[in-house]
Amino acid sequence: MVSASTQCPFGFTVPCNGTFGYEKVEFLSSNSFHHLEISRNKFFLGSASTITAKPALVGQICSLHDFDDFFWEKTPTPILDAIENPICLKNFTLKELKQLANEIRSELSSIMPKTQKSFKASLAVVELTVALHHVFHAPVDKILWDIGEQTYAHKILTGRRSLIHTLRQKDGISGYTSRSESQFDPFGAGHGCNSISAGLGMAVARDIKGKWERIVTVIGNVTTMAGQVYEAMSNAGYLDSNMIVILNDSRHSLHPKIEEGPRTSINALSSTLSRLQSSKSFRRLREVAKGVTKRIGKGMHEWAAKVDEYARGLIGPPGSTLFEELGLYYIGPVDGHNIEDLISVLQEVASLDSMGPVLVHVITEENLGTLNNQKSEISVKKQAGSSSSDSFLFNNNSRTYSDCLVEALVMEAEKDKDIVLVHAGMEMDPPLQLFQEKFPEKFFDVGMAEQHAITFSAGLSCGGLKPFCIIPSAFLQRAYDQVIHDVDQQRIPVRFVITSAGLVGSDGPTQCGAFDITFMSCLPNMIVMAPSDEDELVHMVATAAHINDRPICFRYPRGAIVRKVYPMSSGIPIEIGKGKVLVEGKDIALLGYGAMVQNCLKARALLSKLGVEVTVADARFCKPLDIKLLRELCQNHAFLITVEEGSIGGFGSHVSQFIALDGQLDGRIKWRPIVLPDNYIEHASPTEQFSLAGMTGHHIAATALSLLGRNREALLLMC
Amino acid sequence: MVSASTQCPFGFTVPCNGTFGYEKVEFLSSNSFHHLEISRNKFFLGSASTITAKPALVGQICSLHDFDDFFWEKTPTPILDAIENPICLKNFTLKELKQLANEIRSELSSIMPKTQKSFKASLAVVELTVALHHVFHAPVDKILWDIGEQTYAHKILTGRRSLIHTLRQKDGISGYTSRSESQFDPFGAGHGCNSISAGLGMAVARDIKGKWERIVTVIGNVTTMAGQVYEAMSNAGYLDSNMIVILNDSRHSLHPKIEEGPRTSINALSSTLSRLQSSKSFRRLREVAKGVTKRIGKGMHEWAAKVDEYARGLIGPPGSTLFEELGLYYIGPVDGHNIEDLISVLQEVASLDSMGPVLVHVITEENLGTLNNQKSEISVKKQAGSSSSDSFLFNNNSRTYSDCLVEALVMEAEKDKDIVLVHAGMEMDPPLQLFQEKFPEKFFDVGMAEQHAITFSAGLSCGGLKPFCIIPSAFLQRAYDQVIHDVDQQRIPVRFVITSAGLVGSDGPTQCGAFDITFMSCLPNMIVMAPSDEDELVHMVATAAHINDRPICFRYPRGAIVRKVYPMSSGIPIEIGKGKVLVEGKDIALLGYGAMVQNCLKARALLSKLGVEVTVADARFCKPLDIKLLRELCQNHAFLITVEEGSIGGFGSHVSQFIALDGQLDGRIKWRPIVLPDNYIEHASPTEQFSLAGMTGHHIAATALSLLGRNREALLLMC
Repeated sequence: MVSASTQCPFGFTVPCNGTFGYEKVEFLSSNSFHHLEISRNKFFLGSASTITAKPALVGQICSLHDFDDFFWEKTPTPILDAIENPICLKNFTLKELKQLANEIRSELSSIMPKTQKSFKASLAVVELTVALHHVFHAPVDKILWDIGEQTYAHKILTGRRSLIHTLRQKDGISGYTSRSESQFDPFGAGHGCNSISAGLGMAVARDIKGKWERIVTVIGNVTTMAGQVYEAMSNAGYLDSNMIVILNDSRHSLHPKIEEGPRTSINALSSTLSRLQSSKSFRRLREVAKGVTKRIGKGMHEWAAKVDEYARGLIGPPGSTLFEELGLYYIGPVDGHNIEDLISVLQEVASLDSMGPVLVHVITEENLGTLNNQKSEISVKKQAGSSSSDSFLFNNNSRTYSDCLVEALVMEAEKDKDIVLVHAGMEMDPPLQLFQEKFPEKFFDVGMAEQHAITFSAGLSCGGLKPFCIIPSAFLQRAYDQVIHDVDQQRIPVRFVITSAGLVGSDGPTQCGAFDITFMSCLPNMIVMAPSDEDELVHMVATAAHINDRPICFRYPRGAIVRKVYPMSSGIPIEIGKGKVLVEGKDIALLGYGAMVQNCLKARALLSKLGVEVTVADARFCKPLDIKLLRELCQNHAFLITVEEGSIGGFGSHVSQFIALDGQLDGRIKWRPIVLPDNYIEHASPTEQFSLAGMTGHHIAATALSLLGRNREALLLMC
Repeated sequence: MVSASTQCPFGFTVPCNGTFGYEKVEFLSSNSFHHLEISRNKFFLGSASTITAKPALVGQICSLHDFDDFFWEKTPTPILDAIENPICLKNFTLKELKQLANEIRSELSSIMPKTQKSFKASLAVVELTVALHHVFHAPVDKILWDIGEQTYAHKILTGRRSLIHTLRQKDGISGYTSRSESQFDPFGAGHGCNSISAGLGMAVARDIKGKWERIVTVIGNVTTMAGQVYEAMSNAGYLDSNMIVILNDSRHSLHPKIEEGPRTSINALSSTLSRLQSSKSFRRLREVAKGVTKRIGKGMHEWAAKVDEYARGLIGPPGSTLFEELGLYYIGPVDGHNIEDLISVLQEVASLDSMGPVLVHVITEENLGTLNNQKSEISVKKQAGSSSSDSFLFNNNSRTYSDCLVEALVMEAEKDKDIVLVHAGMEMDPPLQLFQEKFPEKFFDVGMAEQHAITFSAGLSCGGLKPFCIIPSAFLQRAYDQVIHDVDQQRIPVRFVITSAGLVGSDGPTQCGAFDITFMSCLPNMIVMAPSDEDELVHMVATAAHINDRPICFRYPRGAIVRKVYPMSSGIPIEIGKGKVLVEGKDIALLGYGAMVQNCLKARALLSKLGVEVTVADARFCKPLDIKLLRELCQNHAFLITVEEGSIGGFGSHVSQFIALDGQLDGRIKWRPIVLPDNYIEHASPTEQFSLAGMTGHHIAATALSLLGRNREALLLMC
């Protein structure tokens, strides 16, 4: 593999490696086979060379739509072109619907590289999406999705086709469903597992209001790991409102054992069965039978219901009775790529009144249409999704925070055999696989079950182990009570590693980790810290491994800060509650928390050019605060600016409360907090987001200048 | 019913009503029938007269142990008396164990009135507790409970018998399990639903550490509504560690429909079956069969497993296959009051190695042993648990906040047909029943499923209704992500009523609502407010009903503040972000948030006697802040004290951030925050807790005096 650079005709450099040509052919063929020929032609036109570029470049290219739109020829999509509104699907024949599905698949495949995102999850539900919009009348009928990645076909069919290339970019469409984006998105999805609860609310509201629309929620088998789904199904079964839950089962399970297990087979028999189960006559018969047995008496009713249930269970796939036990009528399995079957079952289900909640089990294949191109799919995913930092335009040579974390954890685990890792969330950070491979028996990925992950970690700790619990900031919100009740209150040493803290670029407000400093640092027993760079991260891993009498947490953002390339040395535990001064000055003190220390240093560079002498300190700890450092800063400066990538109520608030109680705020020092603004920041590049948030070095410097009364210079700095 | 007052010989007044004598006899007979005679005697001794006293008095009497211990004679408990450690149970015969169970039941019944707490849940598991401690070797084997109320028999058997009368009192034992209280409590329980997760963690730690202890977790059927239980069972099934989950099924369901449904019958057949299921040979046979069918091939394996599973399902009760689907081996149902059956099944289960997680379904009867006394049980519960404020020493004539809330909600719902109520939590506030009775179709009690409750409310709102979502502060923590992702980020108008906010008396830190101001007011779209008294509460209900473009929340504590007795008038919406000045002074400004405004008024009364003129303002809103009011307070005073019954990061932090950015803190005003201290406050009376927290009127006044440099007077005030 030889590294090389190719100069593109549009003025930017494409770094690529020796397998350049080979990878490209592979990749292009991942566009649906229908237009393989055209793609191959394009390969020689130059624009295609951008496809294999590293993520950094893909990002840049995406902003050049004109250029792309011009050169990127498309497979003809006559049926898709005719659709302005999903209502158009009503009049299509089965043949046309099938062709439409192919056209959408081809369209999605062609857009994929431009949006830096694997569309696998959406490719798998193309037929389901077409069938849903054919059978139901959106937006009157509500179709709720559970996972953003599944909704791109839905977005294409609901008026957002022309915008799909702006996916996840500033002022472009969101990577998730969004009520503010389209009337066809009745509820926002991003964290998974909320669609049944929201759909049930809508169904109940409909019944109370005497309306008739249908509610359809699509859940994925990944989200069925989340507890809320069970709470919702159980309540749906109890309330008995009409609604349709579609389980999109692609067996994309996090548990390898489950992957190995027998897959549900779809054959002619199951197709017939599903149709029979969904037929009006069969369901009516069952209702009548239930009514009759109820009259016979309690005992008999119970046994009759059981015989019915388990007889159906026997001919259904594994899992079916779980839903029945929760009170949903189970239908399935249905082949998710057979539009005829899907329409037939959905039409039956849609036509039923007063039948309560129904679960339709649909089996889909994520690799359908891309079966020949799995390799290139994977390579796209690897490029795009590397350590969840696809939205960061950093050089691939620098390690991300996640890489450093895992290296540090491996080093600690080699020294201390009690260290174990618990991970929860929608997807696993790829670098964690390194730990998993090294210590398979000490790695627990519980999937989208954050509540369990926390209490499970507490249990591991009670059993004498030293758990590190790794959860993205936005998902830690889901287990807040467990953090309080099962860990902090009992002072159990669990080490929380809070990833994706702060702004998250193209993932937008949905995955933004804005609140963790605030909601963790109010807890009495918790040690709350944040590393200012990768070296500090390694030391904090060592610190957390070292502390064994109380819970401790640290947060870090996506991507990399210092772009550390040199080998990591072993971490050294930091003294608890000890910050440090990085640079000394006399005019103003900048006290940064976590990654924002870097922006403070940038501000200092700007200010020093203007003759302002600045102290920059790395607080390291939000709790306990470095009281000595705070007093020194207050006594030696006229102004103190605290800077954190988090909401109000966090680090700045802890500082202000201490210096107020200490009398330092009584005229001695002027304090200004810089925190994330009081709004949700939409998806954009990280740089754009930091600008929007007012958190760049320039913003910090401007704040300092205006504190010094140099407002004109402050304004100039921001121009 | 004639109200009367009886002077007790110990110097306090017993208010009682005309049914005094009648109620007392009823009540006393709820003590186990063994000592009915003795109790009747005591009736005439005077001390018993305290029992029927209203909750206020029960609270007072409980602190007078000597007096109670002296007069309260007990049924002989020779076997229980001989137990110093649960290891003693090992050598007991079946007959002795049965007698022990009876003695514990009698002991619990006799303690009940002294501790103001219904022991029904513990009475139901007496035999199970005895069987568990006979079969397992606590504290080496870990027995985890899920619900505090079930653990009193366990506490009696594990060295805390002599302290049981101090239950939930200051320096007494906790109402929940607690790691710091006893080595026999391997994990803290209070919020329900955490025991399987914690137990699984301990089981995995045991396996990694190469140890052999058994892990037993007891869950209740109320907690099986919580999503975390499913997350935990699914993960337990996957990890396949040895552990025993006991489902204590008393069908104490929140859903009336489920209550009506067929109860699982326990007969000779099921007893035999359970024993067969748990036998080593049967389980080994099954494992071997699984192994054989695995070798035949995937398809066959699947069908063989299913036939086995559903054959077992058919002979098991409803619900059994749900656990099997999640990966737990199901055994049951077992009669929870048949010690012989329990021991036999538990011994079989305990002796099995490498069999993965097992679920034993135990059927218990909450009213056993108290069947004749249900009426008095209920009357105790009514007295003790009235609106969850059993720990408050308020006069019954005053309505609680909850009463006012429900009256206000009824008034609003009568005006606006779109108003609906969603309630989640372990128990329902009794006053809510008034709403439920008036508007049964608009009341949704989802039980212990807080995550679902929030998203369901969001769905109701999307469907055009106006949901009020009522959740205790401590349990709202469990649905924090849903508040953020499903409500606030989408700016959906859901109205959060946060009950039990702040300190909760005898429920201690477990149920304390310390963090809600902090974690709610950092959310960008949320309106955050708190009423200072019952009138304000009524206005805030009207305000919340009125706001329909964004989420809004308000919090109130347990009990009553102003003890309002006059009829409620209809609420008038408050202008958003508008506080008010209650009293004007010139020396110092006290800015209270929520119920703490009352303590500010108390402080003002104390200070005015010392010649200090104080302004007291009711902030009403934490978000948005009343900027005009804040500026006025800063400009007209030298000192500003903010007071809130919540943790750091809340109201005070919002005030300090605003006045800092506004330049008011730059020497103009001296600010001091009063917040809950940075520790968990143990169970005690509310007055004791407020003292411990430093939140009384005296504390506030002392803070003001020391700000004025009058330290000596401040000290005198606290003496």
